[in-house]
Amino acid sequence: MEKYPAVIILAGGQSERFWPLGDKNLFSFLGQTLLEFQLKTLRQIGFRDFIVVANKNIDWWLKEHFYDVPKLEYVLQNNNLKGMGGAVLSAKQKILAKPGRPLYILNCDDVYHPDLHRKILKHYQREKADGYLAGYRVSSYQPLGYFIENEGVIQGIIEKPPSAKMPSHWANLVAHLFVNPVDFIHELEVENNKSIKTDDLYERALGKLCQKKVFRLVSYRDEWKILKYPWQVLDVADYLLSQISFKVSKDVRIAENASIEGKVIIEKGVKILGGTKIVGPSFIGANSIIGNNCLIRESMIGRNCVVGFSTEITRSYLGDDCWLHSNYIGDSVLEKDVSLGSGAVTANLRLDEANIFAQVKEKKVDTQRNKLGVIIGKGARLGVNSSIMPGVKIGKNSIVGPGVVLLKDIPENQMCFAKQVLEMKSHPYTPHAEIRAQFKRALKKGN
Amino acid sequence: MEKYPAVIILAGGQSERFWPLGDKNLFSFLGQTLLEFQLKTLRQIGFRDFIVVANKNIDWWLKEHFYDVPKLEYVLQNNNLKGMGGAVLSAKQKILAKPGRPLYILNCDDVYHPDLHRKILKHYQREKADGYLAGYRVSSYQPLGYFIENEGVIQGIIEKPPSAKMPSHWANLVAHLFVNPVDFIHELEVENNKSIKTDDLYERALGKLCQKKVFRLVSYRDEWKILKYPWQVLDVADYLLSQISFKVSKDVRIAENASIEGKVIIEKGVKILGGTKIVGPSFIGANSIIGNNCLIRESMIGRNCVVGFSTEITRSYLGDDCWLHSNYIGDSVLEKDVSLGSGAVTANLRLDEANIFAQVKEKKVDTQRNKLGVIIGKGARLGVNSSIMPGVKIGKNSIVGPGVVLLKDIPENQMCFAKQVLEMKSHPYTPHAEIRAQFKRALKKGN
Amino acid sequence: MEKYPAVIILAGGQSERFWPLGDKNLFSFLGQTLLEFQLKTLRQIGFRDFIVVANKNIDWWLKEHFYDVPKLEYVLQNNNLKGMGGAVLSAKQKILAKPGRPLYILNCDDVYHPDLHRKILKHYQREKADGYLAGYRVSSYQPLGYFIENEGVIQGIIEKPPSAKMPSHWANLVAHLFVNPVDFIHELEVENNKSIKTDDLYERALGKLCQKKVFRLVSYRDEWKILKYPWQVLDVADYLLSQISFKVSKDVRIAENASIEGKVIIEKGVKILGGTKIVGPSFIGANSIIGNNCLIRESMIGRNCVVGFSTEITRSYLGDDCWLHSNYIGDSVLEKDVSLGSGAVTANLRLDEANIFAQVKEKKVDTQRNKLGVIIGKGARLGVNSSIMPGVKIGKNSIVGPGVVLLKDIPENQMCFAKQVLEMKSHPYTPHAEIRAQFKRALKKGN
Repeated sequence: MEKYPAVIILAGGQSERFWPLGDKNLFSFLGQTLLEFQLKTLRQIGFRDFIVVANKNIDWWLKEHFYDVPKLEYVLQNNNLKGMGGAVLSAKQKILAKPGRPLYILNCDDVYHPDLHRKILKHYQREKADGYLAGYRVSSYQPLGYFIENEGVIQGIIEKPPSAKMPSHWANLVAHLFVNPVDFIHELEVENNKSIKTDDLYERALGKLCQKKVFRLVSYRDEWKILKYPWQVLDVADYLLSQISFKVSKDVRIAENASIEGKVIIEKGVKILGGTKIVGPSFIGANSIIGNNCLIRESMIGRNCVVGFSTEITRSYLGDDCWLHSNYIGDSVLEKDVSLGSGAVTANLRLDEANIFAQVKEKKVDTQRNKLGVIIGKGARLGVNSSIMPGVKIGKNSIVGPGVVLLKDIPENQMCFAKQVLEMKSHPYTPHAEIRAQFKRALKKGN
Repeated sequence: MEKYPAVIILAGGQSERFWPLGDKNLFSFLGQTLLEFQLKTLRQIGFRDFIVVANKNIDWWLKEHFYDVPKLEYVLQNNNLKGMGGAVLSAKQKILAKPGRPLYILNCDDVYHPDLHRKILKHYQREKADGYLAGYRVSSYQPLGYFIENEGVIQGIIEKPPSAKMPSHWANLVAHLFVNPVDFIHELEVENNKSIKTDDLYERALGKLCQKKVFRLVSYRDEWKILKYPWQVLDVADYLLSQISFKVSKDVRIAENASIEGKVIIEKGVKILGGTKIVGPSFIGANSIIGNNCLIRESMIGRNCVVGFSTEITRSYLGDDCWLHSNYIGDSVLEKDVSLGSGAVTANLRLDEANIFAQVKEKKVDTQRNKLGVIIGKGARLGVNSSIMPGVKIGKNSIVGPGVVLLKDIPENQMCFAKQVLEMKSHPYTPHAEIRAQFKRALKKGN
Repeated sequence: MEKYPAVIILAGGQSERFWPLGDKNLFSFLGQTLLEFQLKTLRQIGFRDFIVVANKNIDWWLKEHFYDVPKLEYVLQNNNLKGMGGAVLSAKQKILAKPGRPLYILNCDDVYHPDLHRKILKHYQREKADGYLAGYRVSSYQPLGYFIENEGVIQGIIEKPPSAKMPSHWANLVAHLFVNPVDFIHELEVENNKSIKTDDLYERALGKLCQKKVFRLVSYRDEWKILKYPWQVLDVADYLLSQISFKVSKDVRIAENASIEGKVIIEKGVKILGGTKIVGPSFIGANSIIGNNCLIRESMIGRNCVVGFSTEITRSYLGDDCWLHSNYIGDSVLEKDVSLGSGAVTANLRLDEANIFAQVKEKKVDTQRNKLGVIIGKGARLGVNSSIMPGVKIGKNSIVGPGVVLLKDIPENQMCFAKQVLEMKSHPYTPHAEIRAQFKRALKKGN
């Protein structure tokens, strides 16, 4: 028996709900793409064989990084094969080429603590079941798929049952180890050939297989972060930051009266100017400059950013090459190459303090957050003194004019200006030199 | 003779001109209500018996604090008995119940230096007059009531004479000690039964009494602060701050690179973060957090406030539970539970630098100030980048939208948003990577 | 032969393109007017005799400073004699009064390195030519006048030839030494009597003279700054700052946690408060106050300014008596007595990052800059949260209202307000005390 199964990472989805951000598999955290992060984590545990089921957006990245990861295979997801089931079937040839090789199936956009992989691996290495499926212990109802379970053995899966009909407290978490993946491929093909057009092909096939074979439940209670909606970047970033250790490159210039508190990673070439405070956990990517009198709190900042004078960045994500200047960025995501004029701010709390809803395609989605700022795509520009309302999304390369109060999403490559009617008239005032002199005298008395 | 007279504190008025702030008797300074402050000050001097003539707003407070002040009696002002005279008559039964007890009459909303009370007391204890009335030495004409005085004995009162007809430079200050208050009650009743419907019942009765009995003038030249209009909170706060001694609770966290200058009171549980400066005289109430890189100058800040990054508060009053964030608050009053979004600012100086007028009911009132910010009632919320013009008042629980330039008062429980017409079109620009690179090189050369 | 020629400084122009700023000859740099600066520089080199050809704006200044400069003569430019040629002819009588005195002609608004004057002087003192003309080595084509030159001797001048027809790489720089100025006066008169109505009288006469006499080229490759357009104040200031030496008056108060980096001149009486950084080269004029948490970078600041809390001034010029407060001033010129409300900012970069054009009389002029803020005339006032777009000019004494986004120049003595339509309605929200409590708990955990 192989000590380590091959890992198949499903990264074939279209990231449509992730708009205005780009492909989620290539979204960068702590200086690496999510896919890279997943591969690296798994390699550190011991996995060596990888199959990535890719969408066409990430094809270039795989080509470029192919030689970085030994024994990496990849395949584009077949357009006619949708969802997770379709993703696995797209890799059918690669899987069948080595039929005796066990297979560990993961989603690229599900982030778990690495201990889950270790735990599943341990079960696999010590026990004799046909497979091992991770179960996530839910404390209160959520609309997920739940296992029917009996003494640690899974009997089936029920997708999104009503709260009263939950068969167990174990939600199906995509961390599925198949000792004989050929069985699963077979089951997927049988289900796929039926005329059922629901998108739960994977779950149906897995449920059927559970009835025939012995699949053990591997329980998990730690963090589970999903990258589906763009604001979930904040959850993933927050979780990954919570795992970091303090590491400041030697090649960093930190002013004497700057201060750093808590765990931070500061990469090479970073400059942190005077009067600035960095509160961890935070990450600052290579060659970024954090200007004077700034505050960075619990945030992830990319490479080559310039954070100008008196800017606050709190619980936010900035990609590479962002330029800020006297802004407040709270609970926000700026993908990359985003620039803000002086005084542009995010509102990250509704005035009524209620949960923030975001437009996702045709739907208003409850973000489950009462603190959420703005989500900005690549290359966007915000004018001075602009104000962006909670949960608003700005398409890539779009421009928001000075003084705009942006209440709604704007598409890509748009310019959006506020029409302002100015009233001009001549005025009769003369400057009051003695009033200023009086203010000045008051100042002289003070500090 | 009793060594200390009973004190009657008149707190029965309706605080109508005090809008949008609540009852002025319960307005909190240095962590205590004005009424509490008056009672405490008088107890420190030695007074022990108190009668408070209350309005119905402060009834609950008196009930709650009744046992804190031994020998406190209180009575609600009779609705049919208006003004100061009516207030005293409302307490008639309490006064007549102990007819031999001398009575010292004060307004709750007049703030004097405690030495005035000591001085009047000394006169009373050493001399044999029928009463002692405080006279405030005015240097230039103001529309007040003035004593007719002869060798220290008051012959009568003239209400608001024209400047040319001032009978003396001694204005009638409500700090009136009556050795036999029963005489005054009698005089008030006689005047009250006349069909004169002016609101100077108290002064008419006092004037009559002066003609019959010997009332001595007790001169006073120190501060006299009145709490009638809401901006006068600033005058009272300013005066009370000028009297404080330095006192920082042990249970306070002050960052190493924060600095404190001058006299301050900082109560327990306060945190002052780095890069922040507190300039006295200032008061910071228990458990408030003053964030990074702030400036607090000559201000009174309540309990449980959170003053966020890079906020300046100058010569202002903040009640409990206020939340600020990158704001400028100058010469302003925020009653309680007021929150401001990032970049919301007060304008505290007209562009023509003239005196600021405020709307009080139907009238524009000259505030006599050229620096005055905003007056905000309880529970109000201000959006990001909103701008509030000098002297504007915001009713309690009202919401001012983002980017609003507020020129006029808004009533209570209102939402006020600026309509902004946005023009959207697609744009042909492509990012100029080389321009940013050039800016970056310029930065590299610098600091 | 006289060791030092007399210097004639041409300061007779009308500064029309310099609007909204006042007379350019009297524009103040490093605490002195440009004219004063030129005179002082020349006196340091050794020149002693000066003739200033003035316009009527600077007449008062010359009268006032006449006795400061020994041997200063001045004459008003004759209204009927335009341009540089007219300026020289306006001084004809002064020149002819001492016919044997050599003459060194300079423009007040051309700023060169003083070494140029020294170099020309050295040529004059050692050689036997009829005159010496400075030539500026251009590396790429600019629309200037160019010398026809042969072995260091100038044969003529061609005004603004097309790029392909440049007779040499030596542009005519107005630093012209005439050993016998009478010849030049003669030539100017001959040309002036012709009916040609072009404005190149000076160049035509000089060209003619070059054909008859021996004028040597004196080459120059260092800085050449011209003060024609108002944004060129920044170029001149930048150049003059690059020449300063570190000099901090003893009578200056710099807070312990303020920091100074690079070369600065700080004049007497200046106060620099805590948390502030000054980055050189910078100049801060006498008695100015730089408040807490500010950043001053590569800027020239006049006397008696008050720069309030958290203001950034970068690569900018502020004249005397300016008051700022939580502003961002980038690449901007504020002439004198200019005040900005809190949150007023300059946009100094177009959102498309292209070159910035400015309106100059009827024309749009390419400023050749992609970073340029605002140009503000004397006595102007900007309201809180106003935003001024790149290259916009504000006439003297004008007022820009709060929240205005100013896209275009405004004339003098105007008030300009934005009409804002407010929508008001009552709202049903009640404050969520428990949400704030939850935020507060989150804060408690942090820093």
